[in-house]
Amino acid sequence: MQRLIRVNGVSGHQLEVTDRGLCYGDGLFETIKVVNNKPLLWDAHISRLLASCLRLGISFDGLEERFKADLKALLSLNPYETAALKLTITRGSGPRGYFPANDLQPTTISALSEVSDFSIKSIDGVRLRWCGTPLAINPLLAGMKHLNRLEQVMARKEWDDTSISEGLMCDMEGYLVEGTMSNVFWVKQDQLYTPDIDRCGVAGVLRQTIIDIANTQLGPVVVGRFSERALKDADEVFICNSLIDIWPVVQLDAKSWEVGLTTLRLQAFLKKEYNV
Amino acid sequence: MQRLIRVNGVSGHQLEVTDRGLCYGDGLFETIKVVNNKPLLWDAHISRLLASCLRLGISFDGLEERFKADLKALLSLNPYETAALKLTITRGSGPRGYFPANDLQPTTISALSEVSDFSIKSIDGVRLRWCGTPLAINPLLAGMKHLNRLEQVMARKEWDDTSISEGLMCDMEGYLVEGTMSNVFWVKQDQLYTPDIDRCGVAGVLRQTIIDIANTQLGPVVVGRFSERALKDADEVFICNSLIDIWPVVQLDAKSWEVGLTTLRLQAFLKKEYNV
Repeated sequence: MQRLIRVNGVSGHQLEVTDRGLCYGDGLFETIKVVNNKPLLWDAHISRLLASCLRLGISFDGLEERFKADLKALLSLNPYETAALKLTITRGSGPRGYFPANDLQPTTISALSEVSDFSIKSIDGVRLRWCGTPLAINPLLAGMKHLNRLEQVMARKEWDDTSISEGLMCDMEGYLVEGTMSNVFWVKQDQLYTPDIDRCGVAGVLRQTIIDIANTQLGPVVVGRFSERALKDADEVFICNSLIDIWPVVQLDAKSWEVGLTTLRLQAFLKKEYNV
Repeated sequence: MQRLIRVNGVSGHQLEVTDRGLCYGDGLFETIKVVNNKPLLWDAHISRLLASCLRLGISFDGLEERFKADLKALLSLNPYETAALKLTITRGSGPRGYFPANDLQPTTISALSEVSDFSIKSIDGVRLRWCGTPLAINPLLAGMKHLNRLEQVMARKEWDDTSISEGLMCDMEGYLVEGTMSNVFWVKQDQLYTPDIDRCGVAGVLRQTIIDIANTQLGPVVVGRFSERALKDADEVFICNSLIDIWPVVQLDAKSWEVGLTTLRLQAFLKKEYNV
């Protein structure tokens, strides 16, 4: 089968072992859902990527054009009704040592792969667990989808029970932050809540989309610092990311919930937003 | 010029873009000094690598043999009097997602490159600065030389004044931890000190070698948690890593030191230890 991968703007599947993305995790990525050959929330993903490049000091004139060209090329070959488009940028290949020379040419990778049908999980909801792996606190890197993801790997490694779809992670001080691959929201007395990601965690594109939708359609979301106990008192809980959209949470260890009204309404709003 | 790189045990210079080392920084590395074709502290480096593999759950029967075979092949081509041998292991190439399948075949990379002559810095000492980039605290990952090194990249990116050889980093609580690429020691009234690396930082092979030497030759090293003020009162300061050995610190921002007796003695002990 033809591989749906482009490296530095051309078809390929390898990169130099001296690439700083490998050596230091010195780069960023985006995972974009593609439905019927249409990339969802493209502008939001590219905006986050460019903003994070700025924070890391990775500069690449024409980055958006590069990824747009990759997108066009990959979509022309796309065999999948629902696909994941993963865009990666690294600071590029360079000599040994942490110092990032100014003349490095960033590396881009665009890869298209199939996404499973998640509709049953979207409807029936999913089971979650708590992870013991903590998230380190560092505002300098918080929010970005960078390539330093060992904490997520170690957290995801904690379970292999396939009936559990996601694990929730707290920061080093015990505050709830996110799932290993998702952001988390909950409802308590018709009020929507989600953790702040100013000290650690990923500022998910879908998380922000949901906050924006809720703010205009349902009333302001409370974004703050919450202990894991917040979920025990919640009336509804859901998780989200760009590939899964919204999954209602029906069980978290011993606690269980029904699929809630706010969750259902947000799923409907999101569908409308996507317009696919 | 022939590239002195081996990937998965054969000559090569590329790896799959689906490698988890790139995607998540899901791997480890060692940097070993090679003098006159002899790798220094080989056993200590391999031991640290194997111990860290165990912590990350990366299993590879015959890893040491693989790297030994790489070493032999690279040394037969080695044109450098002093070289850096970088050994990298990743969890391997796999499907998208943090979950590390048990059947992944780890990727190994061995690369030999030239090392500059550092003898003037070893003799005259070096200038240091404080970095503003903090080290996040996470005991789960502390000590390991894993591939999540964005904090070091961001810290090293803070200066490009070539007269400054290294920057010191504190953790999120303000405690001194290490340099961007080195560990730090200091002497106060004939007592040797170095920061604990149980919450963040790299447990350098040379750091441990120096602790072991000092413990038998100079008296026990105090390993603990110290604020940056500890250095202000120090009589001597030095930094170390496997490539630079020991560099006396003669200036840190406004504060300056002479090259001290303990530093000189440790440099001499180390030379004897190496036997090259």
